[in-house]
Amino acid sequence: MTAGLNHCLTGLRVLDFTRALAGPTCARMLAEMGAEVIKVEPGPKGDMSRNASTFRNRRSLFFVQHNRGKKSLCLNLRDPRAMALVVELISQVDVVVENFRPGVIASMGLSYERLKEIKPDIILCSISALGQSGPLAQKPGYDYIAQAYSGVTSMIGDKDEAPYIPLVGLGDVSTGVHGALAVLAALRHRDQTGKGQHLDVGLLDVYYNFHEVNVHQVRASEGAIRPTRVGRHMTYLMPGGVFKGTNGYVVIMSFFHHWADLCKAMERPDLSEDARYSTDPARLERRDEVVKIIEDWLQTFPDVPSAVAHMEKFDVPVAPVLSVEETLSHPHLRARGTVRTIHDPVYDGELDVPGFPIKFSEFPEELPLQAPRVGQHNAEILSTYLGRTPEEVEQLKADGVLIEKPY
Amino acid sequence: MTAGLNHCLTGLRVLDFTRALAGPTCARMLAEMGAEVIKVEPGPKGDMSRNASTFRNRRSLFFVQHNRGKKSLCLNLRDPRAMALVVELISQVDVVVENFRPGVIASMGLSYERLKEIKPDIILCSISALGQSGPLAQKPGYDYIAQAYSGVTSMIGDKDEAPYIPLVGLGDVSTGVHGALAVLAALRHRDQTGKGQHLDVGLLDVYYNFHEVNVHQVRASEGAIRPTRVGRHMTYLMPGGVFKGTNGYVVIMSFFHHWADLCKAMERPDLSEDARYSTDPARLERRDEVVKIIEDWLQTFPDVPSAVAHMEKFDVPVAPVLSVEETLSHPHLRARGTVRTIHDPVYDGELDVPGFPIKFSEFPEELPLQAPRVGQHNAEILSTYLGRTPEEVEQLKADGVLIEKPY
Repeated sequence: MTAGLNHCLTGLRVLDFTRALAGPTCARMLAEMGAEVIKVEPGPKGDMSRNASTFRNRRSLFFVQHNRGKKSLCLNLRDPRAMALVVELISQVDVVVENFRPGVIASMGLSYERLKEIKPDIILCSISALGQSGPLAQKPGYDYIAQAYSGVTSMIGDKDEAPYIPLVGLGDVSTGVHGALAVLAALRHRDQTGKGQHLDVGLLDVYYNFHEVNVHQVRASEGAIRPTRVGRHMTYLMPGGVFKGTNGYVVIMSFFHHWADLCKAMERPDLSEDARYSTDPARLERRDEVVKIIEDWLQTFPDVPSAVAHMEKFDVPVAPVLSVEETLSHPHLRARGTVRTIHDPVYDGELDVPGFPIKFSEFPEELPLQAPRVGQHNAEILSTYLGRTPEEVEQLKADGVLIEKPY
Repeated sequence: MTAGLNHCLTGLRVLDFTRALAGPTCARMLAEMGAEVIKVEPGPKGDMSRNASTFRNRRSLFFVQHNRGKKSLCLNLRDPRAMALVVELISQVDVVVENFRPGVIASMGLSYERLKEIKPDIILCSISALGQSGPLAQKPGYDYIAQAYSGVTSMIGDKDEAPYIPLVGLGDVSTGVHGALAVLAALRHRDQTGKGQHLDVGLLDVYYNFHEVNVHQVRASEGAIRPTRVGRHMTYLMPGGVFKGTNGYVVIMSFFHHWADLCKAMERPDLSEDARYSTDPARLERRDEVVKIIEDWLQTFPDVPSAVAHMEKFDVPVAPVLSVEETLSHPHLRARGTVRTIHDPVYDGELDVPGFPIKFSEFPEELPLQAPRVGQHNAEILSTYLGRTPEEVEQLKADGVLIEKPY
């Protein structure tokens, strides 16, 4: 039995049937906080995401980023001996995580009811795009499918033009984080009552919960507010949005009392006293005019950094719109570990990845986690968890029940 | 001492100094899972968000949506007697959550070091825009400020045009969820070791972790990939994005094997065999052409729903881009409780809000939570937690230390 690493979740055991992004993020969040995660990969290829994104030595950096800290058990799941090993493992873990299409894990013989027979207090976390229930549950789902149904896509872009999708995996990643939260809440309940449960976490529900005002505004305004995309500026405060600077863009959030600070920065104290501009509602009514005043002023600077530096002197909430490339070398992001550099032995080099988004005073250093090769921990898991001899492991390997790859 | 409601976190006690959105979401997530949350509101007005969004009877629906399930203790924090009450309360809770600008809570006399003196195993969760450390930590921060620094804003919109911000509170809400996850992880550690800790959760770090490929691609491609916004379609799979239909928009994700299904739906089996279109890389090279084929075909339908229904027959991953208004009555979102209707007694009516984004088999019904009026639980908290008599409470109220409002 291997000891967990020293972090908040040391001792927690997770069996991870996930693939792609949302499910793997759930398990990775738990691994980065010290849980022991066994990733069950279907042979012969393993997680489909091993074929995604940038490669060297057949090593996918997508896979590395999202599967650090997990142990890989690669099985030919069509062989009954493989499924028997899975059942044995379930009896030894606290949590099972999966993100198949709803119904698939039951058809594999691993429904929540069956899992409970194997381990009465098991916690099963099922992650999906549109949820485990409801008329759309069986649809094939990806991040942007859920985003479109949530109304979030409709809030991005210009009115009367096609909406945009953000080219980041925010729905998948955030849903994985919700899955980890669900697991820890259910564990607390299990520890106090002895009861496990089945958790249902879907991207659609997660996206929908991002609407901080849009949902309640519709009925409450009796139809006067029909939330939709209206460009680059907030609808209920002003100024708050994206402004064109010299050779780049700036986000300025100078509503409320920040307006007076921006007026000082612009050397336009008159604007903060002028009733046409002195309140957020007044400025919202003159939105295009306010944007023009600010953008014309921004053009008097040679570039975005000098404009930002000037506004910072007046405590204006302001930020340059950084490219991803610029974030990699930004002193703040490096100092905080928002971006960090790790080494992967199969890729045989260093790569940049987002740091763990929670900072713990008891664990100031992130754990030195590696992503596994396909089936890298087959022998270890069969030996330490299931008590198999080296000879038995060799036989299962020879029979193609256990699969290993050098990447 | 009041019993917590029956859910996963029953018995957990949280003292909540948060305001606006990110911090209140952290505390609300805990409350919706059964924690007892005492929201300390600064008198005379309480949380600034009581003045935000849509109103009736001076009741802010923004406040209601994000503060259900909390008890309000409204204090004149400038009175030393109020701070003495806060210190007494800290000794009786498990967790303190705050989202002031970094350093402010320490200047109030409630640094983590001081909290530890009051309650040695206290968990302090500090939520901020840019984090508690690093050269930018002291800047005033809002959601889109962090988003701009994270590079996420740069990934939304058309190349060579100004980027867009999604008009939803996704950074704030998601960071609140990360805060709740951090708290539960730290509680598990505390329960096993007796040690509390200080948690640092910032929007910038949360946003950055959404980059599923962009961060690692820069160095790994040796500069060949410079991630940026490129419109309405994914950059590494095709088709995956927003398409114009008849009087509306559709998200279609028919990459991988789904391409053949879309070709069948379009009655164009030739396209799935044609080498110019048969793989994702090939289609990415002919992106505009592929988009045109699909959009021309979509125009043969009378509207978006009929096009979606047709594609669904072929199991194509597809979704209509719903407006927020359309989501409110959608059978799937209603059936799952993605959107739910609640009643607020001060608002004196029903309102629609996003349902809790995690579904628990042990707790199929959401808790019947209400948002508090300003200082609604002053007497209850002073009596049950601090053992004050009704006379003492009345005196503190008469002296303006305790504040109450009817909304």
